[in-house]
Amino acid sequence: MILTVTLNTALDITYRTAALTPHATNRVAEVSERPGGKGINVARVLAALGHESVVTGFVGGRTGDALRELLAAEGPGGQPAHAAVSDALVTDAPVTDALVPIAGTTRRTIAVVDETTGDTTQLNEPGPTVTPAEWAAFLTSYEELAARADAVALCGSLPPGIHVGAYAELVRLARAAGRPVLLDTSGEPLRRGIAARPDLVKPNADELAQLTGSREPLRATRDARRRGGRSVVASLGAAGLLAATPDGSWRAAPPTAVRGNPTGAGDSAVAGLLSGLVERLPWPERLARAVALSAATVLAPAAGEFDREAYADLLPRVAVTEQSSQPEQESHAPRQHR
Amino acid sequence: MILTVTLNTALDITYRTAALTPHATNRVAEVSERPGGKGINVARVLAALGHESVVTGFVGGRTGDALRELLAAEGPGGQPAHAAVSDALVTDAPVTDALVPIAGTTRRTIAVVDETTGDTTQLNEPGPTVTPAEWAAFLTSYEELAARADAVALCGSLPPGIHVGAYAELVRLARAAGRPVLLDTSGEPLRRGIAARPDLVKPNADELAQLTGSREPLRATRDARRRGGRSVVASLGAAGLLAATPDGSWRAAPPTAVRGNPTGAGDSAVAGLLSGLVERLPWPERLARAVALSAATVLAPAAGEFDREAYADLLPRVAVTEQSSQPEQESHAPRQHR
Repeated sequence: MILTVTLNTALDITYRTAALTPHATNRVAEVSERPGGKGINVARVLAALGHESVVTGFVGGRTGDALRELLAAEGPGGQPAHAAVSDALVTDAPVTDALVPIAGTTRRTIAVVDETTGDTTQLNEPGPTVTPAEWAAFLTSYEELAARADAVALCGSLPPGIHVGAYAELVRLARAAGRPVLLDTSGEPLRRGIAARPDLVKPNADELAQLTGSREPLRATRDARRRGGRSVVASLGAAGLLAATPDGSWRAAPPTAVRGNPTGAGDSAVAGLLSGLVERLPWPERLARAVALSAATVLAPAAGEFDREAYADLLPRVAVTEQSSQPEQESHAPRQHR
Repeated sequence: MILTVTLNTALDITYRTAALTPHATNRVAEVSERPGGKGINVARVLAALGHESVVTGFVGGRTGDALRELLAAEGPGGQPAHAAVSDALVTDAPVTDALVPIAGTTRRTIAVVDETTGDTTQLNEPGPTVTPAEWAAFLTSYEELAARADAVALCGSLPPGIHVGAYAELVRLARAAGRPVLLDTSGEPLRRGIAARPDLVKPNADELAQLTGSREPLRATRDARRRGGRSVVASLGAAGLLAATPDGSWRAAPPTAVRGNPTGAGDSAVAGLLSGLVERLPWPERLARAVALSAATVLAPAAGEFDREAYADLLPRVAVTEQSSQPEQESHAPRQHR
């Protein structure tokens, strides 16, 4: 079982409009809702890959009730029933709800999809304030769940009321239980969390630059390792992934640039990395899986889902290349690095 | 008791953002929710004017539950507790919930207020589909409530599933019960509804032009009377109201142009007209009240509420001027009409 933690869950609402006109009244043509938050998205993809997962974090209020109802309705498999199942190797597994109830109300996020331009305008509500007693109840549940997990993923932002060192605390607890732990967050929670020595961190280019001060991915990824990440896999958008690990450094890139909705692409990459870790795949295979899942998510029509046919097609075509293991030399002559 | 009908109720959500950037991710700084839909807004203002009201229409799903809970929490007075009560003549009365439950889910409307520009971007979900059995249940309840009402107001759009002649049917039922009935809607439901001879219709300039084909307000207002409206009061935005009635025609305008959020200004005008009708005020007093309430709504910081101090200040300063009662002459020489 893989445990995913989403402290700031959300009811993700998508509005389709003919065209979004700011400062005017816009009729919404179609409304859809799904359980959201990065850890929940990761669990959905893990389920589609055949990995049993448990989701925890906080949930409350009417929007929280709606989230839990939708999560239960997704049933085994995570992906809604209409998703194409073309790859015989891909099977569905259950997502178990272990969310901790709180007095506050789960936030909504609204994605307004302009059907004329295809662009999305995102509105994210602030999360509910979590009380110290609710955090304590979560920790008790988390320790019990982490002890049973093959791996733990800590995903997304912190809601108000949670101390900025919360992820560092959760990393230490997972490590104390001897469980591999992945951290995917940003800003100060990432800075504190990485110092607690997680097994894997997956920053995107902006998060990595904010953490290290460097926009040069290879240097920044190696810097992030020095800050405490045992392995660091940076997601570089269309350029794929860059990994710095104790076993070596690799770049993994999709065969062609893909166009579509990047929402959830990072979460799919996390699911690819986690499943590969649990299956003890060599790094190049883990990275190829993460890149193919990520690209197949961009290609899927619905935000946060992946196109299984595209995944099966892309997986053998991801180019994984080992990088020079001479960071010191590179740091003296950064311009020569391609 | 005044009965207000809102067939397409809504949970009105307001998002405050530092600035709304289309096609980007926007953090919402503050979220507020209130029961919405035009008839509910009218009832809230009637309550603040001391008129007992009953709200009916349809409500369903989690958003419907939230709407009813918020309506009950507003308590006697309609206006939230923080509203200034400066006018001793203005007292609060109860708003009674007689909404009819449906299987569908009440729609949300989202008003995104850009705090940099002050502009609002509105996103309106489509309403739930109402079944024939739900419409039949509503009609039974409506006939019973209308028979006890001093006046009936039919407000807003029709949700999917309701036949386009629904307002005409409700106008006829109110008239059969001997109750004065006001209609405030648009498009084909207005066209059909006005033919059933309501006592009062309150179109805005666009609705009036769509109905009559004329952008000349006095001519269009008189045309709307010929189509069946016993009295027609057109709301002309900052220019105030134009009334064509069996007793004469008047213009009523605020003393100065007011700037602010016009959301709910038309609903406040309806509440002013209805309360004046029930109190048997002469037309000029009804119109002055409607204009002052409408302007005080534009001036209030929260959408759909009115500033009671501004109302008390504006009321004696509204200019009501009688219009020429020579529509035939005017129709031959429209350019001479000022």
